[in-house]
Amino acid sequence: MLDQRAGVPRTPGTATRGETVPTVPPASTPDPRAAVDVAALLERGRTLATPVLRAAVDRLAPPMDTVAAYHFGWIDAAGNPADADGGKAVRPALAVLSAEVTGAAPETGVPGAVAVELVHNFSLLHDDLMDGDEQRRHRDTVWKVHGPAQAILVGDALFALANEVLLELGTVAAGRATRRLTSATRALIDGQAQDISYEHRDRVSVEECLEMEGNKTGALLACASSIGAVLGGADDATADALERYGHHLGLSFQAVDDLLGIWGDPEATGKQTWSDLRQRKKSLPVVAALAAGGPASEQLAEILAADAKSSDFENFSEEEFAARAALIDQAGGREWTAEEARRQYTIALQALDAVTMPDRVRDSFTALADFVVVRKR
Amino acid sequence: MLDQRAGVPRTPGTATRGETVPTVPPASTPDPRAAVDVAALLERGRTLATPVLRAAVDRLAPPMDTVAAYHFGWIDAAGNPADADGGKAVRPALAVLSAEVTGAAPETGVPGAVAVELVHNFSLLHDDLMDGDEQRRHRDTVWKVHGPAQAILVGDALFALANEVLLELGTVAAGRATRRLTSATRALIDGQAQDISYEHRDRVSVEECLEMEGNKTGALLACASSIGAVLGGADDATADALERYGHHLGLSFQAVDDLLGIWGDPEATGKQTWSDLRQRKKSLPVVAALAAGGPASEQLAEILAADAKSSDFENFSEEEFAARAALIDQAGGREWTAEEARRQYTIALQALDAVTMPDRVRDSFTALADFVVVRKR
Repeated sequence: MLDQRAGVPRTPGTATRGETVPTVPPASTPDPRAAVDVAALLERGRTLATPVLRAAVDRLAPPMDTVAAYHFGWIDAAGNPADADGGKAVRPALAVLSAEVTGAAPETGVPGAVAVELVHNFSLLHDDLMDGDEQRRHRDTVWKVHGPAQAILVGDALFALANEVLLELGTVAAGRATRRLTSATRALIDGQAQDISYEHRDRVSVEECLEMEGNKTGALLACASSIGAVLGGADDATADALERYGHHLGLSFQAVDDLLGIWGDPEATGKQTWSDLRQRKKSLPVVAALAAGGPASEQLAEILAADAKSSDFENFSEEEFAARAALIDQAGGREWTAEEARRQYTIALQALDAVTMPDRVRDSFTALADFVVVRKR
Repeated sequence: MLDQRAGVPRTPGTATRGETVPTVPPASTPDPRAAVDVAALLERGRTLATPVLRAAVDRLAPPMDTVAAYHFGWIDAAGNPADADGGKAVRPALAVLSAEVTGAAPETGVPGAVAVELVHNFSLLHDDLMDGDEQRRHRDTVWKVHGPAQAILVGDALFALANEVLLELGTVAAGRATRRLTSATRALIDGQAQDISYEHRDRVSVEECLEMEGNKTGALLACASSIGAVLGGADDATADALERYGHHLGLSFQAVDDLLGIWGDPEATGKQTWSDLRQRKKSLPVVAALAAGGPASEQLAEILAADAKSSDFENFSEEEFAARAALIDQAGGREWTAEEARRQYTIALQALDAVTMPDRVRDSFTALADFVVVRKR
């Protein structure tokens, strides 16, 4: 499948920084998705999952409970109650929605939603430490506040807790759900290993970048999109199809994220201008531009090779980063990534066709996909 | 249960460094355990589990497979095949033996043995990094050789792999086994959290020390002693009784280990003289001596408080450590710990009485307990 897209970019893109990335083809007929209240879907997932998540975290022995509560944004570094930005909560929304595929109540998906959130946050705690990232969602990361040992230990505890929350259901379905969650976790870990090794390499292929993003972003979204159905008793074919939806949705999301990482409006993303370029990230637009060939691609390769050796990279001006972004655009990396986002979005929606489910549930999956992919941050 | 033992030491011990700790009461009748070939039991566990363990580790993506192989001692730091000391392999021996409790073949316990070894080694990788330990079994630890990120990542991968090895069996019993392994893993993590927090405290109670050792050593030995039976279809009462055997065996083992950590013969243990004292470990003999009261106990408390502030502690002479060891002995910490080792050993063997099993299997459990507790290293 990956080989088919090796042809890479065609025409140079022309959009400017801050513009919304158009990833969804316009609907030709009145769209039932318009009737879906995405905010209500997200709120439902959050409302159902959060109390169970907090109860699970409360089981941790001190001081791990406090460290975890800080990580989730429920308290500040001094231990006072806080209400930090908990993110969009797409995964819990998908997990409880997926339970409805089988005709079960959304509540059936809640242990799955909680387990997925626990694994996601286990990986954030460890990745932030491995990557030396000092900030997450505008707050100091756990290893900065509580030290590396607590980041390791609480990450481990959240991973164990994820399995516990599922397995204490004591059902055959819970065993199947845990097995799928374990596969997703292994993929997450593989993705992080790839991410680390790619940092030390001059060149990363488009295929390698997509594989890494599939592991780091696709696998857990795949699990979130199917775990409620598994808990509701869905067969393997249904669960696999829902995983495909989530996997390709994750790849579409990541492609958009990679575009915003370079051309996103800092006011909307909350990140610096040219954020991924400043971090020398080998994201999709960069690897696609380098793979494209032609004058702009070759010039970009020379500049990035020089940048890698530069001792003054930190002090580069806005204009210098803008020049690199323009070359990526001219080489076709921007347009290729936007097209890839559309392509993955289409595959995600097609995966739903293989599954019998109520129209309302199908429309909700589609509306959530639109929400995930069409965004400014 | 812990409250009952709050009475603490009676008479000062008199044994000297290097002496074997006598923890097993002499048998009054011809002992069927004498007929058990412990070396063969250990060899059987190792022979059955190692190929499956290696196959599981081989599934890891590069470079994690190499890092894990280094950790297990299968290759050296340069990547050449090695045959490092893999330890006594008591846990695999117990796991395959426990399958026979149910009448199942020892092979039934193998996925459990492998999963327990994976969890054990996950915790070693992370603990060595958290504790800053540079050596394990006379080799550089993974974080020293491959860096902290690989120690975190490969630890995570081994933990995930442990669940995978069990859950891919796809049976109800595998789900139950995974749930018990998850509980043991949570206890391991709790124990490490306690260990870290105790380091920063002046005083740790005997009860706190025993709880920590129960979590760090008892929980996984409990799981090893029961997981084969669970995979063989044992009911919860049987599994619980086997867990009690393993838990108390672990506490007995740890009490002996704490004695050897101070008075062990360096040639037998492979550690420095007065090893735990050099590391300021708040091990059982130390906390028992401090809790005992009386002149030696009070003098010890004063000296250890001064040591904690000393900038010259690293350069203390043999005689200075010997003086501290003598005070621990005089205060009764040594004799109390030896008695505690005997007490836990007795509870462990009593737990077996609640389980119906073939005589040969029961004798093997007893012989393994003797092997674990009566030792010089």
